[in-house]
Amino acid sequence: MSGTLYGVGLGPGDPDLMTVKAQRLISGAAVIAYPTLAGAESFARSIASGVIPEGAREIVMDVPMSVERGPAQAAYDAGAAQIAEALEGESDVVCLCEGDPFFYGSFMYLYARLSGRFACEVVPGVTSMTACAAVAGLPLAARNEAVTVVPGTLAEAELARRVESSETAVIMKVGRHLEKIRRVLALAGRAEGAVYVERASLGAERVMPLSEAPEEAPYFSMILAVKGDDPWL
Amino acid sequence: MSGTLYGVGLGPGDPDLMTVKAQRLISGAAVIAYPTLAGAESFARSIASGVIPEGAREIVMDVPMSVERGPAQAAYDAGAAQIAEALEGESDVVCLCEGDPFFYGSFMYLYARLSGRFACEVVPGVTSMTACAAVAGLPLAARNEAVTVVPGTLAEAELARRVESSETAVIMKVGRHLEKIRRVLALAGRAEGAVYVERASLGAERVMPLSEAPEEAPYFSMILAVKGDDPWL
Repeated sequence: MSGTLYGVGLGPGDPDLMTVKAQRLISGAAVIAYPTLAGAESFARSIASGVIPEGAREIVMDVPMSVERGPAQAAYDAGAAQIAEALEGESDVVCLCEGDPFFYGSFMYLYARLSGRFACEVVPGVTSMTACAAVAGLPLAARNEAVTVVPGTLAEAELARRVESSETAVIMKVGRHLEKIRRVLALAGRAEGAVYVERASLGAERVMPLSEAPEEAPYFSMILAVKGDDPWL
Repeated sequence: MSGTLYGVGLGPGDPDLMTVKAQRLISGAAVIAYPTLAGAESFARSIASGVIPEGAREIVMDVPMSVERGPAQAAYDAGAAQIAEALEGESDVVCLCEGDPFFYGSFMYLYARLSGRFACEVVPGVTSMTACAAVAGLPLAARNEAVTVVPGTLAEAELARRVESSETAVIMKVGRHLEKIRRVLALAGRAEGAVYVERASLGAERVMPLSEAPEEAPYFSMILAVKGDDPWL
C-alpha cells in the first residue's frame, strides 16, 4: 500500500490564512517536499514553518533559474523520483505550495509526474489574488461580471489585448514588468483607479494607487484594475 | 470606539477548508451576520455552524428573489443598519461569506454601505474555483497562461466571445445555463476535455466530463475548460 501525495495550498503568506486542513496535514507529516528557486529560501516553507513537525524529512527540489526547459525539468524529475521512493515506502508526502497548488503553482509539475502512479490529493488554498483584493478593498467581481487574470510576463501586445477586453483585470507577477503594465493600462484608459499591492497579508504588505507604485516591484506583487459597477450597490 | 466589521471567507463548503483566521474570528464572535436567499437555509451558516458560539446574536438579511434591484437593495440597506447599530454598540460583527468575500460574494454590498463609516477587514477564503480545479485534477494556469472567469449567466454571444479568447476558461454559476454553455464550448472547439464539477469539497461532490453532465445543474456547479500545455511538464 503506497502513501498519498498531498499538494497543499498554504495561502498568500500569513500563516493564519492556511486552511485548517493544511495545518493538520503538515503538522502530522513525516515527509514534506517543496521547491526552491536557485537556492533561495523557500517562501512556502516559511509560511508553514510554525507547524512543520520536528524531525520531518524534507525533500527539497532546487529549481535553477534558466530560460531553458531542461534544467527545471530535470529538477522536477529528480524531486519526483525522491517523492516516489517515499510514497513506495508507504509514507505520505506533503508538498508545500504557496497560494493554491493549481493557480500558478509549480505543484502541477509534480502532479503530472506522479498522479498516474500514486493516490494524490490537492488541497486548495487562498490565492494571492483574493488576498490582494481584500487588502485593497476592491471587490473583484459580482453577479454577471467576468474576471481576467493575466501574468505581467506576457508580451505587451498580448497583455493589451487581454486588458482591453476585460472588466476586472488582475495582473499577477508584476516584478520587473511594471513599466510595461503601466503603459498598457494607460493606453487602455484603465490606469486611473488601478491599485498596486505588494506582499499581501505579510508584515511587509504595501497597498497604493498604481500611480504611486515603486519603480522596482518584487515578484510577489499584483495590480488590480477593476471596472465594477454593480447595480445592487 | 466602534466595533470592526469582518467579512470572512469560509471557503467552498468543507469546514476544514476554512482558514485558521476565519475559525478564530467566528468562534470568538458575539454577533454574526449573513444573507439568505428568499428564506432558504444559509449555505454560509452551514459551513461555519460547527464553530459559531452558542448565544451569538445572528443578523439575518433575507434577500428576496427578484429581477428588480429595489427589493435586494432594501434588504442590504436594512441589514447594514442592523450591523451599524451593533458596531456603534462597540461590538465587532463577523459576516459569514461563502468562498471569498470579494469573488462573486454578496459581502461587497455591505462593504459598500459600511466601510466608509467603520473599521472593516476582509478575510480572504478559498474560492470554489480552485476547489473545483483541485477535485477535477486540472491545473488552472502556469507561468505565462491567462485565466478567464465568466459567469454562465452571461448572454450567449458574450459568453462565446470570452471563451474564444481564453486559454483557461472557468465558467461559474452554471445552474440552468448548462445547455447554453455546452453550445458555446462546442462551437469554440473547447467541449472536449471540459470538466463539470458540482458542489466541490462537499459530501455530495460530483466530477465528470462535460459530456456526461446532468441535464439539471445546481447553482453551485462549474465548468472548467483548460488549454494548458506547459513546456515544463
